[in-house]
Parts: sequence; structure tokens; C-alpha cells
Amino acid sequence: MMRIALIGFGSVGQGLAAILRDKHAELRDRYSFTPTLTAVVTRSRGALLHPDGLDPAALLAAVKAGRLDHYPDTPGLVRGLDALAAAASPHGDVLVEASPTDLTTAQPALGVCYTALDAGKHVVLANKGPVAVAYPDLMARAAARGRRVLFEATVMAGTPSIRLAVEALAGCTVSRVRGIINGTTNHMLTQMEAGRSYDDVLAESQRLGYAESDPSGDVDGWDAAGKLIILSNALFGRAPTLTQMHVEGIRGLTPADLAQAAAEGARWKLIAEATPDGASVRPAKVALDHPLAGVGGTQNAVTFSTDLMGDVTLVGAGAGSVQTGFAILSDLLALHRAANG
Amino acid sequence: MMRIALIGFGSVGQGLAAILRDKHAELRDRYSFTPTLTAVVTRSRGALLHPDGLDPAALLAAVKAGRLDHYPDTPGLVRGLDALAAAASPHGDVLVEASPTDLTTAQPALGVCYTALDAGKHVVLANKGPVAVAYPDLMARAAARGRRVLFEATVMAGTPSIRLAVEALAGCTVSRVRGIINGTTNHMLTQMEAGRSYDDVLAESQRLGYAESDPSGDVDGWDAAGKLIILSNALFGRAPTLTQMHVEGIRGLTPADLAQAAAEGARWKLIAEATPDGASVRPAKVALDHPLAGVGGTQNAVTFSTDLMGDVTLVGAGAGSVQTGFAILSDLLALHRAANG
Repeated sequence: MMRIALIGFGSVGQGLAAILRDKHAELRDRYSFTPTLTAVVTRSRGALLHPDGLDPAALLAAVKAGRLDHYPDTPGLVRGLDALAAAASPHGDVLVEASPTDLTTAQPALGVCYTALDAGKHVVLANKGPVAVAYPDLMARAAARGRRVLFEATVMAGTPSIRLAVEALAGCTVSRVRGIINGTTNHMLTQMEAGRSYDDVLAESQRLGYAESDPSGDVDGWDAAGKLIILSNALFGRAPTLTQMHVEGIRGLTPADLAQAAAEGARWKLIAEATPDGASVRPAKVALDHPLAGVGGTQNAVTFSTDLMGDVTLVGAGAGSVQTGFAILSDLLALHRAANG
Repeated sequence: MMRIALIGFGSVGQGLAAILRDKHAELRDRYSFTPTLTAVVTRSRGALLHPDGLDPAALLAAVKAGRLDHYPDTPGLVRGLDALAAAASPHGDVLVEASPTDLTTAQPALGVCYTALDAGKHVVLANKGPVAVAYPDLMARAAARGRRVLFEATVMAGTPSIRLAVEALAGCTVSRVRGIINGTTNHMLTQMEAGRSYDDVLAESQRLGYAESDPSGDVDGWDAAGKLIILSNALFGRAPTLTQMHVEGIRGLTPADLAQAAAEGARWKLIAEATPDGASVRPAKVALDHPLAGVGGTQNAVTFSTDLMGDVTLVGAGAGSVQTGFAILSDLLALHRAANG
């Protein structure tokens, strides 16, 4: 049994809980893997801990009813603990951090991660903050404790960009990564190609839940930049900070720009690109026969340029509750494989 | 030190040797990994074994001069052993099988693999035969001996299609795999789109070394079918045999067919597709905005359709000496990781 303390129970945490509810038998039978949620902590909707495990279906029902307080009483259940208490608790092998991202301070999640590592837990991140802001410190602390920090969920949801770069392409030297790693802006650009205005498409994206009420994280390129810093750290062992890189979003693009690109046999895409020497996020015209040009809607894609394999491109979902939940599951399975050979 | 017995020293074996020559320090420093060739066996160009390891640069120089007999004499060097002797030898931890593929009997490679497993070696395959013809038996024998059989090199060279399917997407249920997994025919179709005839393009592909003098393995779909059987086994644990599936190549396609597809906003591609219930290889018209339509030249691509992640597509090189050599390296590194946590 792998005991999991989960911080954050929004879309991603609920996606993970739904997978654990639906795949319990499959994971046990195929991988001898029995992940169990022992703690779930939210900032404003309550918190629960049970040393023997919480029922994912009951957790989902409780939060659907408004708060985790609706979870049924059982002997041994503890209510109301905070994230640091869950991170320090002995009733967990892995801390999953899925609270909202802060790309400036990474707090409070970063402190929670350190506490979990110090308590002997592995850390799995969906929150981009800690690994975008403090990658070297986090990895050093994990190494000192003999624990691992995994973060597949922070880039391209469950499309395994990190695992491809770090494990499957191990032995290659990657000289560049380039891709479309923000689904909201890619969806907006795809819609704008039909001639619709930026404002119109943004309003619709906000209605559909693809964009937030303050859309700046997506449309000004900050979300892509945070993910690019993570990719750069994973690939090159170093990365610029947000203030050291060129970050430009899609606000300046008009339907006329997009029409002109189409006339030239090209498409505007928000392209994130990193090498060992630097990184940038900016709109770029991509020729229609380029692999990234065909990546439409909320899809994401990254191309790794390598010494031995040339270019290797991965295309898949870049967001979503279940998709990001799967990314966490894939990290948990990797920890399970490493522990069980 | 991981000691490797290599069977076959053609393009793929030489690609592996070149990587081991060039990446010795990098592999040691980054992964604490020191792979060493202790035996190299060819059918008609000699064979060598040295318990302390053979020098990759000297091996490449010897075979460039015509035969492994040109490798310099050193104390302890054994010459002239055969593949079964190398497989049974105590001077190896892993057998790498890179001799030519036989999709009908898989011999003599299959017997060599069994001998290696019985002698306690892991097996890494570039040869498609054993894993296309005898997957269940091979895996059962490996499990009984506590050894592993890896085969990333058999599909899409070093583009990590097997590792993506089996490891990175573990936890998802894959319901279908669909892709372009023969580079020769994809190159020919790309050339034919410029209006050139099948015969003209085939003759040129043969001159360039993309197609063999008997091109049937590529142009009639058998190479793709063999790879599809391997993918199907890896994904679904079962696969049809060559005679149980529809296998159709590109001989019937004319420049007029390709021009008509272009007029319809589509492209002909040789599509391999498998589900748990069956598999086929056949030419299909693919809409230009489909991810597989943009895969040109000798590139390959596969799309995995999954329950949690939707479609995940991987695009990269499908062949090449260094690229296939890298696939073998990636399997060796996976064995190294598993042995060293």
C-alpha cells in the first residue's frame, strides 16, 4: 500500500480521486499497486486524515456537497488538519501537492514540500510553483533525504513530456526544447483563425472555463514561461528566472495578423523555446507543414532536439482534470516501480 | 560494469558501437553507467570475445577494413566463437540481438535468445523476429529466469514508442494504436506526391539504401506488420499472426491516386492499426489536418488512443544506424536503472 497525503482538492485533486475510485482493481491487478489517500487538505473547504485510508468516492461526494465536512464520520477520522500537519504526519509515504500555483514565491506549497521531504515522504507536484521557483534547492533537499520529487503534472498534464525527456531519451543530449505548452492560448488562436476577435474569443474561453477571470497568466505567456522553466531545469539542470527571459503573450495578435499568416501558408502559435543558454515565450509564425502547426485547440506539443535521435515530438492533451490526475498517477506508479523493481 | 554480448555487427550494431565509443565519459558521469562489449559475433565477418571488454573504436576500424579478424591481438582475446557460444558464455550480463530479422521462424535468433536467458542474461532486441514470432514464450522464459526482454529498437528505432506505451502511459488503458511505422514507404509516398511514379521512386530509394533489392518487406507492408505485432503484444498482451491480419502495401498506389487525394485535402499514408481485437496494415487517405498527415519522409509516428489521456502522438525517426543504436542504449540504460534504483 502506498499512502498519499493530498494537498488541494480542486479540479486536479478531484481528477486523481476519480481515477483512484475507478481504477482500484485495475491498478491492483496489473501493477500490484494499491494507492490509498490517507489525507486530503484544502485551504477553505476542510481537511481529513485517516490512517487506514479515505474513500475516494465519499471524498468526491463530500466536496460536491460543498465541503469535506460532509465526509461521513468513521472511527479514527481526524478533521481540520492543515497542510504542514499532513506533510509531517507519519501516515503517508508520498505528498501530492495540487494546490494553486504561485510562480513568484511558490509558497505556501514550497514549505509544505520541504516539510514532507524532511518527514521522509516523496513529493509529487501538480503545483508548478515549487519546481519553477526552487528546483535546485528542492532536488538537493530530496537527494539529502534519499527521497524523490516528481512533477509530470506540471507540464502538458499527463502527456508524458517530463518522463520522455528524462527517462525515455536518457543517453541523448537534448540541445533544445520547443513547443506549444499553454492550451488556453492555443485554443484562442485556433478560434481566432476563423476570423473572430481576441476579445470575443477570450470572453468565450472564460465562459467555458478555459481561461480565468484574470486571464493574464495564460494570455501574457506566464503559464507557458513557468512550464518552460520546469522543462529547462529537467533537461539542462538549470533555467533562467521569469525576469531573465523574454515573455510575450498573444494580446497583440489581431485577426488580420492571423489572416496574413494563412495567406503565407503559416499559422501564429505561442511558442516556448529553451536551450541550455536561455529561454523565451513569444508568438511565432509556423509553416503549415511544420509538426507544431497541426496542433490545434487545447492540444499541446513539444519537440526535443537531440544529438542521437534528431527531433522527437510529443503531442497530447495539455490540461484537464482527469488528464492532470493521470499525470500524478504516472508519477506514483514510477515511485511504485522504483520501490518494487 | 554491464557486459554486453552483441550478435550482428551490421548497421545497427555499428551504430551502437559508435555510441559506446563516443559517449563513454558522458554515460559514466551522468548515469554511473559503463557498458562494455565483451563479445561481438557476426555470421560471415568473424567473431570476437574478451572477458575484459573489446574496444568499440577498434571494432569499427576492423569491420571497416572488411572483417573482425583485423581486430588487434591482445592477451585473453578469443576469436571465432558462434552466437550460441556467446549467448551461453559467462562473460556477459546482457545479450543484444541485432542480426537480420526473419519474421517467419525468427531463427536462428530465437534459439540464441533462449540460450542467453537460460544462461542468466537479459535480452535486448533490435531483431524483430523473436518478439514478433514468439512473444508469449519469450516473456514466459524470461519471467521464469528472473530476466527481462526489452525491444525498443524493433519499432521506430530509438523514438521511444515502446517505452511510452508500456511505462509512461502505464495506468491508462490503451484501446488502439495507429501510425506510420515504415519509413521507406513513407519516404516513397512523400516523393510520389511530387508526381513521380512508384517505379522511379522505388529505384531511387534502392540507390539511397532506404529500400532493399527485394523491396517486398517494405512496399508490401510486411515490415510494418511485424512491428505492429510487436506493438500489439506490448500494449494488449496479444497479437494476431501475419497470416491472421490484413496486410496490404503501397504497390497499387499511382501518382493519379495521390493527386486526387491532394485535391480532396488529404494524403495517402501506409497506416498500421491495432486494437485488442485485431490488426491491419493498409494504405489510407488521411485528412491534411490530421496529425499523421504531416509526418513526411522517413519520419514515423504512432498515436495511442487511451481512456484517461485521449490521443497521445509520438513523432520521430523510424530508422537509421545511430537512431537504432540509441534504442538499444536506452534499453541498456533501463536495465541499469532497474538494477541500481
